[in-house]
Amino acid sequence: MQSVASSSGTVEECVAGVLAGDRSVLSRAITLIESQSPLHEQRAGEVLRRLLPHSGKSKRIGITGVPGVGKSTFIETFGCHLIDQGVAVAVLAIDPSSKRSGGSILGDKTRMDNLSRHSRAFIRPSPARDNVGGVARHTRETILLCEAAGFDLVLVESVGVGQSEVALRSMVDFFLLLLLPGAGDELQGIKRGIIEMADDILVNKADGDNRPRAEQSRLESQAALSFLQPATPGWKTQAALCSARTGEGVPEVWHRIEHFFRELEPSGVIAKRRQQQNMDWLADFIRDELQRRFERHPAVQARLPALRQSLLLGEITAVAAACALLAEFDGAPAKLPAL
Amino acid sequence: MQSVASSSGTVEECVAGVLAGDRSVLSRAITLIESQSPLHEQRAGEVLRRLLPHSGKSKRIGITGVPGVGKSTFIETFGCHLIDQGVAVAVLAIDPSSKRSGGSILGDKTRMDNLSRHSRAFIRPSPARDNVGGVARHTRETILLCEAAGFDLVLVESVGVGQSEVALRSMVDFFLLLLLPGAGDELQGIKRGIIEMADDILVNKADGDNRPRAEQSRLESQAALSFLQPATPGWKTQAALCSARTGEGVPEVWHRIEHFFRELEPSGVIAKRRQQQNMDWLADFIRDELQRRFERHPAVQARLPALRQSLLLGEITAVAAACALLAEFDGAPAKLPAL
Repeated sequence: MQSVASSSGTVEECVAGVLAGDRSVLSRAITLIESQSPLHEQRAGEVLRRLLPHSGKSKRIGITGVPGVGKSTFIETFGCHLIDQGVAVAVLAIDPSSKRSGGSILGDKTRMDNLSRHSRAFIRPSPARDNVGGVARHTRETILLCEAAGFDLVLVESVGVGQSEVALRSMVDFFLLLLLPGAGDELQGIKRGIIEMADDILVNKADGDNRPRAEQSRLESQAALSFLQPATPGWKTQAALCSARTGEGVPEVWHRIEHFFRELEPSGVIAKRRQQQNMDWLADFIRDELQRRFERHPAVQARLPALRQSLLLGEITAVAAACALLAEFDGAPAKLPAL
Repeated sequence: MQSVASSSGTVEECVAGVLAGDRSVLSRAITLIESQSPLHEQRAGEVLRRLLPHSGKSKRIGITGVPGVGKSTFIETFGCHLIDQGVAVAVLAIDPSSKRSGGSILGDKTRMDNLSRHSRAFIRPSPARDNVGGVARHTRETILLCEAAGFDLVLVESVGVGQSEVALRSMVDFFLLLLLPGAGDELQGIKRGIIEMADDILVNKADGDNRPRAEQSRLESQAALSFLQPATPGWKTQAALCSARTGEGVPEVWHRIEHFFRELEPSGVIAKRRQQQNMDWLADFIRDELQRRFERHPAVQARLPALRQSLLLGEITAVAAACALLAEFDGAPAKLPAL
């Protein structure tokens, strides 16, 4: 990843470079936005404010699935297909595990070798941040930057491990779930709620000997879908087969996505979803920021271990412990009697 | 409900009365805890602190199910059965709708006529409060009071509509889900996540002509359970039939609950769950309180409508709007450039 120091151009240069579709300026702008320095935050805010009127025109697609489902291969094949169709593609990866592993899923860009070499493609990993909503915050802003840079489609990838899908669903128009053949075992690894969020379900690796098992998975998914409300009003989620390796089924995914936007854009469903997503983003950001301030408050940090211990021993109620911590946060004596 | 004014005894009298199992003192103590007056909060905190060492000895049971499933009738039949077995029962109802309807589900106590007349039973509705975590907060404290008053079992009832089940699951040891015969239609009304939280599933109204459909529902639930992790480690959730009207299947529920505690108490699973619940309660309370302070801040309230409008029009990003609101909350100028 590029250092923030290298993003030392003026705000004007940055805005102009992004609008001109300059990949390296776009990269530096994203790095600026991901910076936690207050000085950079101010400049990042100004850059975003100036680019905002130029954003919003892409199709925002989320992709999720358990590790091993073949997301990178799928994105490679799908992305190259889009490029062939004249669609400029940006790929962003939310990586919830990078804090632990120290690396990013897409750090190994060779996994998307053909796509990454393409001049109309842009691939960017989003490292996890230490604040709760950090991942979502910066990925959302990065989507806006990519749109201002002229990308027609922004693919956001997430690993299928818990909360990240909810965050991902809240920032895309269309949500694609990849499954492995052999749904019986796999459904246990996937939270049921994720099926409910999908606009399209794709059983990958449906080639060779896998084909019958993939078809069975597809049928099971289709049956599960029949019990659920549609993820997007007016859209019927389907389960289909594909092989990212052979490319089979990949053009059909793109047909369905185009169909989705053609059907739903005129009715205002997508614009309404984006408005709601913005309101949710506002609420999430504020909640996380309030929580962050509380957790980092020195007096709260100093008092917490003893209170936690008392709580675990059953000496105080959670409400009493909370009131004591809130009083520390306020710099005032606790309103409740001596604990 | 009794007025707070009538709870004007001393803290000592209140504590002694609750410990003596005096129903009317217990009622007044709960009213004191539900009061939002700062003076009452202080007294309530002191009462809780003194009663806390006497709490924790009951079996905490949560019951949920869609409206019409027969929860009140079930609680009536089940409660009377427990009383016959020498078990003192307290029934608490979380009512998320009372804010809108102006009444409480159990306000109409005649629905539990026999149980409410019993000297070893105690029935208390918990009205919804205007702060987010209010319902959960007061119900949790009310459980502690009932335990200090000597109840062996505290039944907490919730209506099956969304978030309330998660709050309910977070305050009980054992979670019982009531279903109606005819699961096909019904599974759509029940969030799938609720099945995952259940320690016991009971298809109610399994009498007369309903019996075959009830058995089918039971089989479908049992099949669904086979895909899920157990709600409680070491416990295998079962789906069974009952009829609250005829009483059939009700003693068996109590056998399973006794079995649950006999099996899991020695292993420490329940104590560990309660500790985790206390930690979650602490975090929830603080999060809700921080949110409440923010939402009620006059400068935030004054600025919000215009920022919301700008956000909906796409003139600013959610992060910019959030920063502007947080600056109002701090009483400082916004850190970001002019919005």
